Amino acid sequence: MKDYTYPKRENWEKLLKRPTESLSDIRKVVQPIMDEVQSKGDSALKAYTKKFDGIELGKLLVTQTEIKTASSQVSTKLKEAIKVAHDNISKFHKAQKIAPLKIETMPGVLCERKSVAIPKVGLYIPGGTAPLFSTVLMLAIPAKIAGCKEIVLCSPPDKEGNIHPAILYAAEVAGITQIFKVGGAQAIAGLAYGTESIPKVDKIFGPGNQYVTAAKQLASLEAVAIDMPAGPSEVLVYADEEADPAFISADLLSQAEHGVDSQVIFITTSTNMLSALQKEIYHQLSELPRWEIADRCLQNSAVIILKDEKECIDLINQYAPEHLILLAKNARKISEQIENAGSVFLGYYTPESAGDYASGTNHTLPTNGAARAYSGVSLDSFVKNITYQEITPEGLQNLGPHVEVMAEAESLIAHKNAVTVRLDSLKNK
Amino acid sequence: MKDYTYPKRENWEKLLKRPTESLSDIRKVVQPIMDEVQSKGDSALKAYTKKFDGIELGKLLVTQTEIKTASSQVSTKLKEAIKVAHDNISKFHKAQKIAPLKIETMPGVLCERKSVAIPKVGLYIPGGTAPLFSTVLMLAIPAKIAGCKEIVLCSPPDKEGNIHPAILYAAEVAGITQIFKVGGAQAIAGLAYGTESIPKVDKIFGPGNQYVTAAKQLASLEAVAIDMPAGPSEVLVYADEEADPAFISADLLSQAEHGVDSQVIFITTSTNMLSALQKEIYHQLSELPRWEIADRCLQNSAVIILKDEKECIDLINQYAPEHLILLAKNARKISEQIENAGSVFLGYYTPESAGDYASGTNHTLPTNGAARAYSGVSLDSFVKNITYQEITPEGLQNLGPHVEVMAEAESLIAHKNAVTVRLDSLKNK
Repeated sequence: MKDYTYPKRENWEKLLKRPTESLSDIRKVVQPIMDEVQSKGDSALKAYTKKFDGIELGKLLVTQTEIKTASSQVSTKLKEAIKVAHDNISKFHKAQKIAPLKIETMPGVLCERKSVAIPKVGLYIPGGTAPLFSTVLMLAIPAKIAGCKEIVLCSPPDKEGNIHPAILYAAEVAGITQIFKVGGAQAIAGLAYGTESIPKVDKIFGPGNQYVTAAKQLASLEAVAIDMPAGPSEVLVYADEEADPAFISADLLSQAEHGVDSQVIFITTSTNMLSALQKEIYHQLSELPRWEIADRCLQNSAVIILKDEKECIDLINQYAPEHLILLAKNARKISEQIENAGSVFLGYYTPESAGDYASGTNHTLPTNGAARAYSGVSLDSFVKNITYQEITPEGLQNLGPHVEVMAEAESLIAHKNAVTVRLDSLKNK
Repeated sequence: MKDYTYPKRENWEKLLKRPTESLSDIRKVVQPIMDEVQSKGDSALKAYTKKFDGIELGKLLVTQTEIKTASSQVSTKLKEAIKVAHDNISKFHKAQKIAPLKIETMPGVLCERKSVAIPKVGLYIPGGTAPLFSTVLMLAIPAKIAGCKEIVLCSPPDKEGNIHPAILYAAEVAGITQIFKVGGAQAIAGLAYGTESIPKVDKIFGPGNQYVTAAKQLASLEAVAIDMPAGPSEVLVYADEEADPAFISADLLSQAEHGVDSQVIFITTSTNMLSALQKEIYHQLSELPRWEIADRCLQNSAVIILKDEKECIDLINQYAPEHLILLAKNARKISEQIENAGSVFLGYYTPESAGDYASGTNHTLPTNGAARAYSGVSLDSFVKNITYQEITPEGLQNLGPHVEVMAEAESLIAHKNAVTVRLDSLKNK
């Protein structure tokens, strides 16, 4: 990790620069895949699955038998942990329900708003060595609570044509309606346009590599909503001088093991701990199976010593981290001054991994500075709010003349007339 | 308008096809403008303003003197109407505030969520003959209520270098912090990347032509959030047999006057009213100043007779209209079965134009079927929800072992370790 001691504010932007790249070149690679799936449907999906995943599939849909078999392959301990996570995530997301709103803004003018589920949602879960069953829970549980009718999951098959049992088990527990063996940009295209097997969905969620991200971007331009812009994961850890270097190291490394493009930033006002921290990080690193990834990630990462707490808060708000860990006695007081962050972890005994898996908050969060304007996934992500209004004849007599004035001032005379014909009919009554 | 009587369900998709086009060609035109503004800042903005708006500007920022002068040019009647609209919009949007959430998901595991304002937002208001001061109110009022610190407005100047007085007046009333004379794709680029004059914002809102829409799409891929995908405005009107043909006609025409690419759909189960309706529409049309636009729009539009109420509800949900007007005695009952719509207008005395201007609901709504997954603009659009968690040592002893199991099953050992080092330290205490 690179050290910066008391950097000037005008240099912060440079220090905090993320190792992200524009996806414009990748979008050009992905566009023909999208087009092919749109025009050829399942046969294109199967051809790409053969090409990219090395397996020729007869059917894309995972059967009930496969799901049952998967369940028998998951350990009791993991099932129990998934249950705890499921309970906590359910509790926190159920509490996010918004009651319908009714306001009489002026006599006879009733305005309302109500949350209504998005009918069809598609969830993407990447393949690879780490089976991200936790992401299945994070996306499917709120979809189910929201009342989405179809909750479709796509994930790439392995070389034997299977999806990891833990993913299938979590999908079953969380209430997924259909699971398809397809990955990459082609899966996103399938969800966006629909095929013979895969229903066209209204919104696509979930992480993925650059091809998946680029495909989601392209889909969002034409056909379908997406959860949020995706980028490599990141953490900013702030520690006071009483924080345990072992905790700091473990939190930094748990981010660094995600990938070489992950970003890890450590800030503090305390210079005392640095040598102990450096030593502890490399000790922990040496024992990790994914140490090579973590080590390369740390090389892009920064330790920044700042003058005081105020500077730390300013830097956090400028960076807008996906994850913010406050290893400090006054973590709560600091958190009240945070304007831009995805999710905040307060105090010495709150590791990010608790929220990544099982505390109840969602782990799908805005990266790459998007936390300035985006929320993480929540119950809100699976509903839309429809507004309603009902105006009585008296209400229109109160409000209508003002609408007529405004419509006329905007030169929209038919808009005015929609009020006038009604007011006239009331005069004649 | 084209008539369709009892069309088969499998033909609905074709009948309901919107006259929208892909913006991929327009994005290619807009990209160099975006790049130029990003690299050259104000000088690029001024050059494009000279080229596209025909005026050479010294300064882009509107002065306090200009705002005062504008206020003196707005009639008392319009000021009064703007005040009524402002009050109603404020009431409805203030009621959308969400209280902070605190849930102890299991003993010692506290999960929280809080709305925090997006610090900097940019609003775009198109120029042209109709000065859309109503959109200034619809975007700036919730931004102000949310607590956004910077609320920046861009709108193109006329050939004399001025912005319409009603826009400046509404901006002043609604609490805009800075107004810039710049329009088109270059304005969006200015807001997305920042220039010497214009601050870089976190989210861009507002309508515009295809160039503006394409610029917002491109900005959303790289730098900044946007309100929603934009398309031509549309209405679906449903009427029962007691509805007044004059009201139906006025509502259809108030949508049709927006533009030749607007879409207007009328559905009913009643065949009796059709000849009276046809006659009334053309009577009202003949008296409109924008009759040519409305007439061309109607040519793309459809009158659809359906068998029963159930079919009408299914067709509405399939189309997902931006505006849905229910001119029916049982409008409320029907509205309860609507899954996909932007905003719903209930009953005979609730014209869309009431909501367009002054009832209190927001008029920035999802078009082009996006109502399946998107909400209209609301207070939510100007905040993000940050999650927080705080775990006590006892809480981590309850939750931690499950996190360790899940992290290990995902092969993320550093994630597991972030729990283990803490549990170990508690054992040693």
